[in-house]
Formats: sequence, structure tokens, C-alpha cells
Amino acid sequence: MSKKINEDLLKERKKCTFDMQELTHVIDCGEQNTMKRKFIDDYILNIKELWDDVPEEYLSHKERYENAIRKAFIILRCLREFNSSSMQVSEHRTPTNIYSIQDGIFRNVNPLLIHVGLFWSAIAAQASADQQAEWLKADSKMIGTYAQTELGHGSHLRGIETTATFDPETDEFVLNTPKLTSYKWWPGGLGKTANSCLVMAQLCINGTCHGLHIFLVQIRDYDTHEPLPGIKVGEIGPKMGFNTADNGFLGFDNCRIPRSNMLMKNVQVLRDGTYVKPKHNKLAYGSMVLTRVMLITDLANQLSRAATIAVRYSAVRHQSQIKSDEPECQILDYVSQQHKLFICLASSHAFRVVGLWMWNTHRMVTADIHQGNMEQLPELHSLACCLKAVCSRDATSLVEQCRLACGGHGYLLSSNLPQIYNYTAAAITYEGEYTVLMLQTARYLMKSWKNALEHEPLPANVAFLGAYIKRNYEQWQSSPEGIINGFKDIAAGKIKTSYDTLQRHLRNGLDPEEAWNLSSIQLTDASEVYTRSLLCELFWRDTKQTCNTVSINLAVVLEQLGELYLVYWALEKHGDLLLYSTISRNDIELLQSRYGELLALIRPNAVGLVDAFDIRDEVLSSTLGAYDGRVYERMMEEASKSPLNAEVVNESFRKYIRPVLLKNKM
Amino acid sequence: MSKKINEDLLKERKKCTFDMQELTHVIDCGEQNTMKRKFIDDYILNIKELWDDVPEEYLSHKERYENAIRKAFIILRCLREFNSSSMQVSEHRTPTNIYSIQDGIFRNVNPLLIHVGLFWSAIAAQASADQQAEWLKADSKMIGTYAQTELGHGSHLRGIETTATFDPETDEFVLNTPKLTSYKWWPGGLGKTANSCLVMAQLCINGTCHGLHIFLVQIRDYDTHEPLPGIKVGEIGPKMGFNTADNGFLGFDNCRIPRSNMLMKNVQVLRDGTYVKPKHNKLAYGSMVLTRVMLITDLANQLSRAATIAVRYSAVRHQSQIKSDEPECQILDYVSQQHKLFICLASSHAFRVVGLWMWNTHRMVTADIHQGNMEQLPELHSLACCLKAVCSRDATSLVEQCRLACGGHGYLLSSNLPQIYNYTAAAITYEGEYTVLMLQTARYLMKSWKNALEHEPLPANVAFLGAYIKRNYEQWQSSPEGIINGFKDIAAGKIKTSYDTLQRHLRNGLDPEEAWNLSSIQLTDASEVYTRSLLCELFWRDTKQTCNTVSINLAVVLEQLGELYLVYWALEKHGDLLLYSTISRNDIELLQSRYGELLALIRPNAVGLVDAFDIRDEVLSSTLGAYDGRVYERMMEEASKSPLNAEVVNESFRKYIRPVLLKNKM
Repeated sequence: MSKKINEDLLKERKKCTFDMQELTHVIDCGEQNTMKRKFIDDYILNIKELWDDVPEEYLSHKERYENAIRKAFIILRCLREFNSSSMQVSEHRTPTNIYSIQDGIFRNVNPLLIHVGLFWSAIAAQASADQQAEWLKADSKMIGTYAQTELGHGSHLRGIETTATFDPETDEFVLNTPKLTSYKWWPGGLGKTANSCLVMAQLCINGTCHGLHIFLVQIRDYDTHEPLPGIKVGEIGPKMGFNTADNGFLGFDNCRIPRSNMLMKNVQVLRDGTYVKPKHNKLAYGSMVLTRVMLITDLANQLSRAATIAVRYSAVRHQSQIKSDEPECQILDYVSQQHKLFICLASSHAFRVVGLWMWNTHRMVTADIHQGNMEQLPELHSLACCLKAVCSRDATSLVEQCRLACGGHGYLLSSNLPQIYNYTAAAITYEGEYTVLMLQTARYLMKSWKNALEHEPLPANVAFLGAYIKRNYEQWQSSPEGIINGFKDIAAGKIKTSYDTLQRHLRNGLDPEEAWNLSSIQLTDASEVYTRSLLCELFWRDTKQTCNTVSINLAVVLEQLGELYLVYWALEKHGDLLLYSTISRNDIELLQSRYGELLALIRPNAVGLVDAFDIRDEVLSSTLGAYDGRVYERMMEEASKSPLNAEVVNESFRKYIRPVLLKNKM
Repeated sequence: MSKKINEDLLKERKKCTFDMQELTHVIDCGEQNTMKRKFIDDYILNIKELWDDVPEEYLSHKERYENAIRKAFIILRCLREFNSSSMQVSEHRTPTNIYSIQDGIFRNVNPLLIHVGLFWSAIAAQASADQQAEWLKADSKMIGTYAQTELGHGSHLRGIETTATFDPETDEFVLNTPKLTSYKWWPGGLGKTANSCLVMAQLCINGTCHGLHIFLVQIRDYDTHEPLPGIKVGEIGPKMGFNTADNGFLGFDNCRIPRSNMLMKNVQVLRDGTYVKPKHNKLAYGSMVLTRVMLITDLANQLSRAATIAVRYSAVRHQSQIKSDEPECQILDYVSQQHKLFICLASSHAFRVVGLWMWNTHRMVTADIHQGNMEQLPELHSLACCLKAVCSRDATSLVEQCRLACGGHGYLLSSNLPQIYNYTAAAITYEGEYTVLMLQTARYLMKSWKNALEHEPLPANVAFLGAYIKRNYEQWQSSPEGIINGFKDIAAGKIKTSYDTLQRHLRNGLDPEEAWNLSSIQLTDASEVYTRSLLCELFWRDTKQTCNTVSINLAVVLEQLGELYLVYWALEKHGDLLLYSTISRNDIELLQSRYGELLALIRPNAVGLVDAFDIRDEVLSSTLGAYDGRVYERMMEEASKSPLNAEVVNESFRKYIRPVLLKNKM
């Protein structure tokens, strides 16, 4: 079979009305970054040992881990080389990019992800200068992980049960796991790989509990890798995804560590057991917020991968006829298929834009914090909560939509769509469960509404609440700005209603907590539509700005994507618009027909738009989505790798089938 | 650790206000069936060899297949014993039940599913009396599967490319796979297990193509199991689920079979090549409709499993406080958790009811067909399409909702929730892809609307279209019947709008096919809300009838579930109700507060309701959902089975980690 590019894809690429490379540069935040990304891509992806002969899906659980560790240490070496060169990986675009490449290499996750991504940065953020000097030494033997969640506690941090009790006699902390539910459970790399662990535990001094603090504990011998005395550690078994990471459990039985192993940048325990409180009790927020912010960009990348696979496949796949006298058409020509896929393209751009905006916001707020100004921390926290929650949920359901849009073939692991789903779906839960995060933002919104009622000054992203109180209903405008205002009207309306419901419950004599629980469906709903209004506004604002800086051909396409996002969500939420804005039935019909127009406008550029994501075949790692469109050839090639196909007759025939055939009717 | 039952579950069971066993009998369609089910459960589940020491998730792809084949032949023996006893498995409740047990045994699917469930029944339905006498002989050595879908064609059956050309010289058919895309792809059990295959191919006689027909082809030698000459066969590789089934590919290179191997009940090819057409061209529909009907009951069972796991876990799991002075509460007390889970309980009952109704409808229509009356076939086909589509999509998203409601622990395979998702999600695609099926029903609805406009008589399930044309808007009634009428108003309104849109496109000069494509989003939407109105009406009607036959305590609870289903969907579709019914903003608020009341009413019975599903622990196969609620103990026990935990230090330390530790900083 020839290896030339599929003709449908060639035609699609010719049809494209804009310069794909220009869009790639926009996505990368500049041509320089594109070049740097490509350099790193080339460098890592050209390492032959990173590629498997047998795809990891055929391996056993244990083999999969061993193979992943092999690759992880090759990648660690690369990272070190980049860090000691001008190709620093610390800049915002690049780390995510490095992770994306790894998605392809592992078709899953790097078991050293926590070591590289969280362990060192937590030490940098929470350890004192002396501790950092000690631990960040060049000859460190630590392979680290971070242990917070326990078997019995995740969302409710205060409920964590692991204890670290100060022993003034020996100047040590004694760590214990009082019950089965107190076992640490989930940390990545803990099961078999890490020899060091940052442990979140309740600090007890002299019978007083001072709450959660972080302790550095060596858990395995550096030379033998055997667990140290007082440590019970192992892996927690297979999961939906992340199976190349050895997520683990960890229990302590009077495990002793020196006092100096508590992370003491913001808080101290002195030699005599004196506890020195942190200046601000919200300082620990920082790294959790940052992880959530970075996740949004990662979700944009995952959705880009899924959309690339589904759009290219839909251009290659022919099925049935639209006109009876013509050959079978590309399934991308079905409006129902465009309806499934183009919102994925638009959402991926929206998440990228919002991820970048949050990154910049986070940087500004963090700079303020270093100046001692904590004022914007609650707003940052609230934004990171709801945007992480909604983006993870949207990305997950859209990835699954891409998979389903590929029909049966999307169910094959060789499509890579199930793995992208399993990876993305995890983000709805880790680093803050969806509903828990939405209710955190709701709490901020209730406070903001109270402030608005009392004419207090409001932060930028809730300023519309003040405006809502003052003004009357505006006439519905069928424009992007009109839709954004509509979403703000819904958000304000639902925030007001939730607030009123809470107040009514309180007047009826309920506890605040009971009232909160009874209102939680409404509160979550208010948070969600508030988040949608943010996504719409931020994406559209950025689109308009970007359009001023790019060629007219590209600007036209970007505006179509931006508008599609707004119109799609206006139609999805038309019920709320009917309740909370002045939209009419006729306005909704106009939006429907505009939506149809936008699908038709985007159709000729669909393949160009996914090409512009510029994701290499090795990173897509999909039979359905490769650049050359050799879909069916690749499917057959991948199937031929199955160990079951390496033998003509499997031994189960002799062992189980033949004896029955000889004796019985089947 | 003691093995007594978790105290929270004990308390929950005491709180239950109805007789769980009575509900179990309702679910089983009578006490007799419950007893029979329990007998079969006991019999099969007590076979020790069916249980693994190492859970299948730890095995490699190949080992997993071999282990599944081992178990499949044990189960085949059981089925044969039941069939030759009074415990016939042919009745409607029982086959599904047998499959459910297998879900637990395989934590996945039986590789002989197609052999047992489709191969023989297709022969019974499509083979002539002579052929049946020959093939169904007691000493048959056939292990069969059914090959329809090809690499390049699924939904569009007419596009299937495999050919069967009649050779009058030898009185044979010659089968060929003309292109790569013509390879059969997907049949379960084909990859390594089957030696016989029913093959769908284009029948060619003397240069004329007579369309698709079914041919019985031996593909492997009965003794050696080696593929026969002219056969290329293998497995297609790992999938999201169904990994214990060796789904396969199959290609033909001038493979010859006797003329008598074409299935000739309804159609014949004579010795001289004369083609004798079938009397009715829709007779082939039958088995596809039946599979879709049976799927609905299976989906109800899968959702029951997921709901049982999530509800029991939510009763055992404590997290955070509702009141600050009280201990951490059960997460089932959070209204947001009830919102996620109780709709799963209600939907499972709704699907069970609708599955049974469809089963009975199918039986009646089939009896009519045997009398030569085909009149109701189009309606049956339309109902099976849309109900299969919507129930599979609903069940899948609700199973995922159950998984997410279990937080991080739901991500572990030991919860079994990811596997239930992977299994259920497949049903959105196989046996008719969601959008394709919805558009099939839409075509029926467009015809029905035309008939309604022309005052033609209408079948029962679309009779509301006639009423809609005649009557004026009714006043909104806040009652179950009012909601059902509301859904019919939306359905009729959307059917009318879609029809008008189609007509407008036609008047504007578009081809019918183009007009259909441009209207497909609206058409799918109309089908969906029509299906919802069916689900609401059928479930509520059955609920009212059942309530007349059960104790008052149970009736109260069943009515709450029925009403919850209606109110939930009315709120989900409030936008459409605002557009197409006379519902007011105030009515919606009343529904919201009624919804809150229903959650509170169902809360004390939640555990009782899942206990009444009466699913054995072996079938649930979940650390989180077992009857005794030993959640954390089971999680630790399951983790201890990991082969990675069987060794203190994995060899990857010596091979990959230690060399780096000795040389470098980590």
C-alpha cells in the first residue's frame, strides 16, 4: 500500500481559506514559541528507545509499569538537558507541551509526573531557605511524591487523620496512621517508585493539634529501595487511566523524622515545641490554585487532540449518500456531525484563551502577594475553582463526543480516544471535585451579592452584579455582546435567587449549613452559568483583540469560532435566557439559523483548523487521526501487532475448546 | 478486621419504609421468577473455577482472552444443563439475568456471547427448514459468529462490499473481499474462537447484484482450528471494554461454499441461478429490532448495578459536616449527591418498564407478522430505534454520574464503575449509532405528521399529533399528567417545526436529501423529545398500574420515583416547555420545590431501593458497593492482589532507577 496522503485530506487542505501556520503561531503565543516547541518535539520524539514494539495496551499491569519507568528515566534525562541549556522548560507554554509529548509516548502518564511537577515546586514554595539549601543539593537522591488524600478523606482536608506528634525528648516528629481510613491513598509514583514523600499530617504538640502541615519523609532506602521501618507502602491497583503511574498507599507506624523535616517557610516548630503560626493562613492555597490554572491549558490540549482525530477521520470516512445520485459522502458533510465536532474546535480555543488569562492573572496576584497584598486572593481562588471545574467537565464530555462521532472505530484503543477520555475525565475529580469546587465559587458569589446589595466595591469579574441591581432589563440584542449580556443576566438572576432562597431558609429557622445544603442544586447552577458567562466573555474579548493583530483571512475564521461558541451555548441555555433575559421565541429561531450558517462557514476550514493545532502523529497516537489519513491501513497494521495474532491457533483451543467439541454439540 | 455489616447500612435498612422483597418481586415480574433467578445465581456463582485469584485487570491482553475462554466453556456447559432442565433460559427475564451474572464473572463480556445469543437465533430466523435440520444437529461442531460490519461500512448497510458470486458450474458461491475497506471488522468471538461465521455479503448472479444476503461460512478447521484456505482472520486489538471478547476481522480470497450455505428461509437461489425474491423486504428487520429491545432491559440492569454501588458507598462514606457541631455526615445527606443519584434509581426503573413493554409489543407485532400482517412493523421499528438510542445514551451518562459521585475511588477499577461505563457506552454505537437511529425515528415522525395533517388514522404512539392539530393550548397543569402532556406538546411542536423547515427548504429548491441534512439537528431534537415523552408516559402509566397491585407502603415509594423522573425531566427541558407549552416561571419554581421535596422523601429509602434490585456481590463485583459496606477493607484487600505488591522491590529499580541515582541528582 502506498504511503501517500489521503486524497480527501489533500482536498480539504486546499480548500482552507487561511494560513494554518499563522494560527499555529497564535496558539503558541508567537512564532518563537512554535520553533522552540518543534525543536523539543523533534529532540524527544527522535529518541528511538521511547517507542514500543508492542503497544502498552497489550501488556500486563506489571509490564506496563516497568516499561513506563524505563521511559520516564529517559525523559528525565532530557528534561535535565533542557534545563541546563537555553531551552528552559519553566515557561508557561513549554511545560504543558512537554507533558503533551509524553501523552503520546506513554499513551498515558509519566510515573515521575508528581516528582517533576509537584514535589520540587512544593519544596520551593513551602520549605525554608535552609531546608531548600539542604534538599535541593545537586547530589540529591530523592525521588519524591506528595501525599495528601487518604482512604477516608479527600475533599474535606480538615478531616485528614495522619498525625505527626512532636517528641521534645528526641527533637523528632512521630508519624502515625491511626486507622485504616487514615492510610494515604492515590499519590502518583508512591506505589513502587518514590523514596521520599511530602506528607500532609495533623501536627500535634503537647496534646494540642495545630492542624495540617507538610513533612518530608524518606520512605525507602536510597540504596536498596526497600521500605524503611515503620512504613507500609504499596500500589493501589489498576484505574480507568493513569495506569503507567504507580499510584500508591502509605501507612506509618511510629515513623520518626527529625524536627527539621517539617516544611518551615511560613510556619515553624521551635526546639522547645513552641509553635510559630503563619502570617496568613491562606498562603497554602497558592500551589493548589496554580495546579488548577495549569490544568485548564492541559484540558485545551487534550481536547485539541481528540478534535484533530475526529475531524480528520470525518473527512476520510465516507458513509451513505446525501444525494442519491452521488457517491457516498464524507461524514464531515453531515450537519449533525458538524454539530458534534465544531463546538469541540471552538471550546479548545476557548480553554486555551482562558487558561492563558488565568495564568497571567495568577502571576499578577502572586506578585501582589509577595508584596503583602492578599486582597485579590479570594477572587483568584474562586475563578480557579469554577473554571477548572467547568473546563474539565466540558472537555471530558466533548472528548467523548469526538469518540462517539467516530462510531465503532472510536471504541478501539488504537484510536486513542478512549485513553484521552480516561485521562481527561480524571480532572473532574482530582485537585478538587466538581461539585465541591462549584460550591466554593458559589460561596464567593453569595458574598459578592451581599456586597453588591450593600453597594460595596466589587472585583472586576463580579462587577456585573452591581450593574444588575441598578439597571432595568435591556432589550435582547442578537449579537455576541448581546449573548454575553444575556449570560450575565442569567448569572445575576440565579445568584439573586439562590441568595433569596438561602435567606428564606434562614428566616424559617434553619442553620446556615442546612440552608446551604438545601440550596446546593441552585447554588451549583448559579456557579455554572456564572462560569459560562466568564468563558463567553473572556473568549470573545480575546478573539476580538487577536483579530486586530492577524491577517484578515484568519480573523474571519477566528471570529466564526468565537461566535459559534456563544451561539451554541445561548441555544443550550435558551430556557434560562427565556427566564432571565428579554429574549423572544423569534430571537431563538434567529440564533438557530445563525448557528446553521456558522457550521456551514466553518466546514471548509475544519481540517485546516485541526492541522493548525500542529499536533504530531506521535502525540496524537491514533490510527484514525494521523496527518496522512491512512485510517484503514493503520487500523489493520495496529491489529497485526496483537500478540493473539502472532500465533495461528491459541492454546486455549487445545485446552478448553477441543475437549468440548469432541464430546458435545456446541 | 471483623466482617460484620457496616453500621450506617444497618441503620439505613432499618429506616426503609417498604418491603424490599416485595419490590424485588415486582422487578422480577413475580415471586416465581425471583426464586428461579436466585436458583440460577446460586448454581452458577457457586462454581469455584469461575473465580479468579488475580483479577483480570492485572492480566495482559492475551492472558485475559485465554482466561475468558476457559470460563466461557464452563458457562456454556451450565447453559446446556439449564436448557435440558425445567430451568429454561429462553424466557424474557432469564436470559438477561444470565448475562448479568456473567458481567460479574468476566467483569466484562463472554467471548461466546454472539455464539449463544445471535448465531443460533439468526439461523433459526433466516435458514430454511432443511438447513435448520442440517445445522442444528446435536453433534454440531460449529462455534459461530455473525459478520456484518466492515472496516469501511457500518451504518450504511447497502455500502457493504464483500461479494458472494454464484458459480453455476460448481453450484457454489465464491466469497471475496475486494478491498481493504471490505474486511469484516468487529464480530465478537471471530478473532480466535469461532470456526463458523454468518457472513453478510452482496449476492451476485450472472453480473447482477441482488443486494445483501447471509451466508454460512466455515472459517476454521474443526479439528486443527487453523483458518481454511482463502480465509484471512485475526483479532482487531484492545478496546475500551469487551476485552474478554476477541472481536475480529475477516477477509475472503476466492473462498468457495456450497450454494446450500446461503440462508434460504425467505429468499432462494435455485440450481440454475434463478433468484427468488423474499415476499416482504422488511422481514430481515426482525432480529435487529429484537436485539435493540433486549438491550433496553440490559441497560436497566447495568444502571441498577452502578446505582447500587454509588448509593451504598454514599451511605458508608462520611465527609465534611453539614452542621459544624456534629460529626462528619454521610455524603448521601448532601442534596447535591441525592440530585446525582436518585434520578439513576428512577431511570433504572423507567428503562426496566419500557424494556418489558417493548418486549411485549415486539411479541405481539411478531405474532401479527406470522399472520401476514406487517402493518405495525414501521411503528415497532421506529420505537425500537429511538428507545434504544435514548436509553443507551441516558444509561451511559447516568452510570458515569454514579462513578463521579464516588469521587476519586470511583476511578479505581476495583469499584467496577469504569468497566460498567465502558460496557454501557458501547451500546450508544453498536446495533445502530445514536444519531442514525434518531433520524430513522424522525423519518417515521415526519410521515406521521404528514398523515396527521391529512387526517389519516395514526398509530397509538403518535396519536397525540392528531390531537395537537385539533386542540388549542391547554392550561399548564402541575401534575404528572400535566408534565406528560407538556412533553407531548414539545414533541408535537418540534415535529411540526421540523416538518415546516423541511418544506421550506424544498420550496427553496433543495433536494429532499439536502433538505433532510440541513434539518438534521432539529430532526434529532424532535425525535429525542418524542422519546422522552414516551418514556415519561410509559413509566408513569406502569407506575400507576403497579401501585394498584402492591402494598400501600411500596406504592407510595414507586409513585415518588415515577414523579421524580417526570419532574427531573420537566426541569431539564424547562426551556422547551417555555417555548411549546403554557408553563410559567412560577410553575417552574413550583416544580423546583417539588423536586427538592421528592429528594427528601426518597432519601430514607435510598439504600432499600438499591437492595431491592437484589444484585449479588459477585455480580456487582465492586469494592465500593458490596452489601456489607466494608468499603475501605475491600479496597485494601483488592490492592494487595496487585502483582506489583507481591515483590518488595520491582526490578525496574535495579535496571532503570539505581543507575541514575548513582550518577545524578534526581
